This record gives sequence, C-alpha cells and structure tokens, in this order.
Amino acid sequence: MSAAKKVGKQTIAFANPPVIIGRATAVGPKEGKGPLKDYYDVIAEDNYFYNTTWEKAERKFFQTAVRLAIEKANLRPSDIDYFLAGDLLNQIISATYTARDFNIPYLGLYGACSTMYEALALGAMLIDGGFADYVLAGVSSHYSTAERQFRFPTEQGVQRTPSSQWTVTGAAAIVLASQGQGPRVTHATIGKIVDLGVADETDMCSAMAPAAFDTIRQHLEDTGRDPSYYDLIITGDLARIGHRLVQALAQKHGLDLSRNYTDCGLLVYDISQDVHAGASGCACSGVVTAGFLLQEMQAGRYRRILGLGTGALHSPIATQQGETVPGIAHAVAIEM
Amino acid sequence: MSAAKKVGKQTIAFANPPVIIGRATAVGPKEGKGPLKDYYDVIAEDNYFYNTTWEKAERKFFQTAVRLAIEKANLRPSDIDYFLAGDLLNQIISATYTARDFNIPYLGLYGACSTMYEALALGAMLIDGGFADYVLAGVSSHYSTAERQFRFPTEQGVQRTPSSQWTVTGAAAIVLASQGQGPRVTHATIGKIVDLGVADETDMCSAMAPAAFDTIRQHLEDTGRDPSYYDLIITGDLARIGHRLVQALAQKHGLDLSRNYTDCGLLVYDISQDVHAGASGCACSGVVTAGFLLQEMQAGRYRRILGLGTGALHSPIATQQGETVPGIAHAVAIEM
Repeated sequence: MSAAKKVGKQTIAFANPPVIIGRATAVGPKEGKGPLKDYYDVIAEDNYFYNTTWEKAERKFFQTAVRLAIEKANLRPSDIDYFLAGDLLNQIISATYTARDFNIPYLGLYGACSTMYEALALGAMLIDGGFADYVLAGVSSHYSTAERQFRFPTEQGVQRTPSSQWTVTGAAAIVLASQGQGPRVTHATIGKIVDLGVADETDMCSAMAPAAFDTIRQHLEDTGRDPSYYDLIITGDLARIGHRLVQALAQKHGLDLSRNYTDCGLLVYDISQDVHAGASGCACSGVVTAGFLLQEMQAGRYRRILGLGTGALHSPIATQQGETVPGIAHAVAIEM
Repeated sequence: MSAAKKVGKQTIAFANPPVIIGRATAVGPKEGKGPLKDYYDVIAEDNYFYNTTWEKAERKFFQTAVRLAIEKANLRPSDIDYFLAGDLLNQIISATYTARDFNIPYLGLYGACSTMYEALALGAMLIDGGFADYVLAGVSSHYSTAERQFRFPTEQGVQRTPSSQWTVTGAAAIVLASQGQGPRVTHATIGKIVDLGVADETDMCSAMAPAAFDTIRQHLEDTGRDPSYYDLIITGDLARIGHRLVQALAQKHGLDLSRNYTDCGLLVYDISQDVHAGASGCACSGVVTAGFLLQEMQAGRYRRILGLGTGALHSPIATQQGETVPGIAHAVAIEM
C-alpha cells in the first residue's frame, strides 16, 4: 500500500483529489419553502411529484437529480463508470429503480443517512485508484415513505416527540471526475460503528452524535489538523440535539467546535416550519451538500469544508427485539 | 485513469491482484446435511444458533464467520482497514450489528444476493488502489428471516411454487490482502441493472438470469477471453431455472457454456432436501465461494474461476405497487 495515501488510522489523503464537476438537487414543497430554497434545482409542487404513490415519487426525485447532475457535468449516462447510490427504503428500491433507468454499472450502498458521504468517499477512492474517470453519487429520501416504514402511518397522526426530526423529501446527485475544475475531494475518513446504548427510536440525534464526534476527532488526529483549518465542519442530520451533543463532546476532548461547526439538519427548515429537532434523511446532507455547500464553495464563501454523513443503522425489527441504535459517520474533506 | 486498469467497458484488471488470505463459513443444520457439508467451518445444531430470534441467530452466524476468517488470516480485527458487508434484511442489520462487534471501519452494501461479489469487487479495488492492506468482505442470510420479510410468515405454511428457492441459512467472510499466498482476485466486472419484466416474486431465477448472462458476456468481451479460459464459471443463486436460462441465452449468443458452467444454488442442497428450484440468499454464493470453491482452488482442482454474485433488487412494496424485479450480477475472476 502506498504510504502516501493512508494517513493515520482511518483517513485517506487522495493523491489526485477527484473533482466535483456536476451536482443537482430536487426537493419537495416543504423544503422548497425553507431557508435554502434558492439553492435547489427543482422544487416539486407536491409530495407525489406527478406519481400515484410516495415511493414512486421518491424515485422521481432521484431520477430528476441524477439526470440534471449528468447534464450539468456535460456528460451522457454512458460516460459514467459507476453509480454509487442508496436510500432509506427497504432494499434501497429508490436507488435501484433509478439505476435501472440510466443503465450505468451500479453499486448499491446502505449507510442510512450517511449514504451520500459513503458514496463520495468510495467514489473518490475508485477515481483516485484509477478505476474510473467519472463516478455518480446519489441519494434520496421522502418524509412519507420513511414515516410509514420506520414509524407510523402518516394518516394515523401520531404526536411527534420534541427529539423527532423531519425526513427531507428530495434527492441529490453529485458527479465526481478524475479531471476538471471545481471543488475537490481531498480526504475521506471512514467511520466505525459507535453505539452508546440509545434505544429511543424517536431520538436519532443522540444515537448518531457520538459516531459523528468520533469521526471528526479521528479525522483531525489523522490529518494533524486543527478544527480551525476548516471554514466549516458540518454533520449530516444530527439536528438540534445532536449538534449540541457533538459540541459538548468536543469541549470535553479539548476541541473547539464553537465557531465553525453546524449541521445540515439545522439548515433545511425554518423554525416556523414545525419540524421539532430539525431535518434528517439521506437527502438532508445530500441536498445541503449538492445545493448550498458546493454552490457557496464555488462562490468563494467557503474554501475548505469537512462534511460528514451521519447514519442511524437500526431497523424497526432490531429495536423491537431490544437492540440499541448503532451510529456511523463518514467524513469527506472538500477543498477549492 | 491508468489505461492498464480498465479493460473494455465494465471490467477492471487489477495491477496487483489482491490475495484471499482468510475465509470462513458458518451454516445452519439443513446446509450442514447438504453435499458441501465437509467444506463448512461451523454447522449449527438448529436455526436459532443459541439465540431467541432468527434475526439474532443470523447475526450470530455472521459474527462466527467474521471472527474465524480474521483468525484464519492470522490477523486481529484492528488490522483490517475496511469491513464491506451486507445482507438481505431491511437496513442490513445483520451486517451492521456484526460490524459493531468488531470495531472496523464499516461500509454497508446492499446488492441482495450479489453482495458477496459486490464486496469482493470493491474490496479488491480498495486494496489495488492503495487505500487498504486488508479488507474483510462478509454476508449472511437466514431462511426464516428472509421468508417472513419477503414472503409469508413461516408458521403460515404457504405452499411453495416449483420456481421458489430455499434461502441459505449461514454466513461467509473473506479476507483480502495486498500481499500473501493464495488465490488472487484478478478481474472484476461491475454489472448494470437488467430488468426484462419478470414480476413474479416467487421466480427470482428468471428475474436474475438475464443480468447474470449480461455480465458474463460483458466480462468475456472486455477481457477477450473465451468461456473455456475458466475451469469454472459459476453464478450465485439462479438455481435450476436460471441456470438453464443462462445456458439458453449463451447458446443464442454463440457462447458455449455447456461444459464449465454451474450455479451455487445447485450445489448447496441435495435434490432429496425438498428445496424446489435450489438455493438462494446472500449466503448461497457466500458459503459456496468461501467454503467449496476456494478450498478446491487451493487443493488444485480449479485454477481459474469466474464467480458471479446475482441479485434480485426488488422489495415487497415495490412489487405490490406493480413494479417488476430488477436483476444485477457482479463478476470476479479468481485465479491461482
């Protein structure tokens, strides 16, 4: 193994950092009324998006984001070497049926809400390793498909707990390339499972926060960087509770995350939109990254970002059988 | 991109082919009475494997295979750079809770029954690309967890159709390394989704066969090899019906697969074991590869094998909403 590529215990420093040459997002109406509304490519008028079921609608968001990202990269689907994708639904059907439409060699991933960053990290390795010129990373989620799969039928109107989050309806796609102009994926830190025993299915924030902090800490240790190296450190969907937990853990470990750390789950909705702790879902870090973050990097607002996808890797049947919620977080450094 | 690595449209030829230095299997009692019984490391006395639920038992098989594979490679879990794993259960809980026990950076995959070969292909890329010294690939499946998730409660005693397959109860783990002695992963061909419109959830054989043939054909075209180059071409879990379909497709395309082609789904059970079309599940190609195939390669019976993981990437909700079953197949060439 080339010693130059692996840095410390869990981090890769890419020899030829892959470039982000295309990106697109498609979101639902609630997201389209949120603070980031001007950053999305497509905002659907309703959650069905011209379809008859929510599952089919989720696929339509995914297909829309993929088609646009490929177009914006000035490529055709046949130019893409691999499609790395996943979503929250059982058997990742949103990703798979989207892959069917584009006829690109397909590698299905499951990292729950960490999937976009799992795909970016793996995609960057496939390009830097010389196995691909172009990799497409994509994710989707949908409030109504996730609610009925993980929690309760939406029609039931169950009261939401203060720690509950609102699953982002939408999809994001990012094209990585071996060459070109744009933000570059310079490092990836692959996370381990961290499970501190949270068994409350309505509090994913607390379940994921220790994993997020573990990966941030490991990334900084591996690279020898101080948190201040980054203009922004941003986690995927820890929302209000998890964001505070990460800051508390950082303080305890002597790391200052008070100035440049935020969470995608805090940015998608306005406090008036009644989403309790904040946003979640594969599309949460997906649309914030492919929409807001990369656009602001290209506009010069941020030069160095450490983004983390955060996932709660339980299932209803696992928690029904007494299991706790395993968390994971994968980090990717994106630099201009 | 190094021109030497990508061969043709969908195939990678590894510059420094990763070596398989450890492998292990753990299976249930029915598998332990089958024709390959002497190739398994652990045979459980019952399908609960000292646990209280089938889901927990599936995890126990997974943990057992992983622990043994690492031991047989003379490594510790902390030596492994990445654990690439998946299974059939919603949110791949068998893989995730196994990953929690071993504290290895974890990348969750979902390729249905193709997952072992997806993991081997990606794992080989991560090693050959210089990102890892050791990668652990693992999968599991369990007859009773799969039946109740995908089909009917086992207690219901629904009559099985002639095309139905029996999900293998067990798990397999394989350790890939950048150096060492043993069979080597020389090529990987990543498949595309192929969906010819099969909508019968009890006939996965027919849904997956066209994808399997597509990847075999593409691999042979990309490498310029004739089927006779391989001592054995073996698909994952097409069973009796799919195996015949692949042979028919090959004949139509002028490829001779009559002499050296078989399917893992034909090998796990004896005809007297009442499994209808044959075996299936992530563990089908998993235990046949990690048990029988690699042992026979090391014994000198086979020198060159083309193995394919085959996956049916539907979900119950997708087929209930009128969707057909998308198939996929990933091929890996293993040579002594």
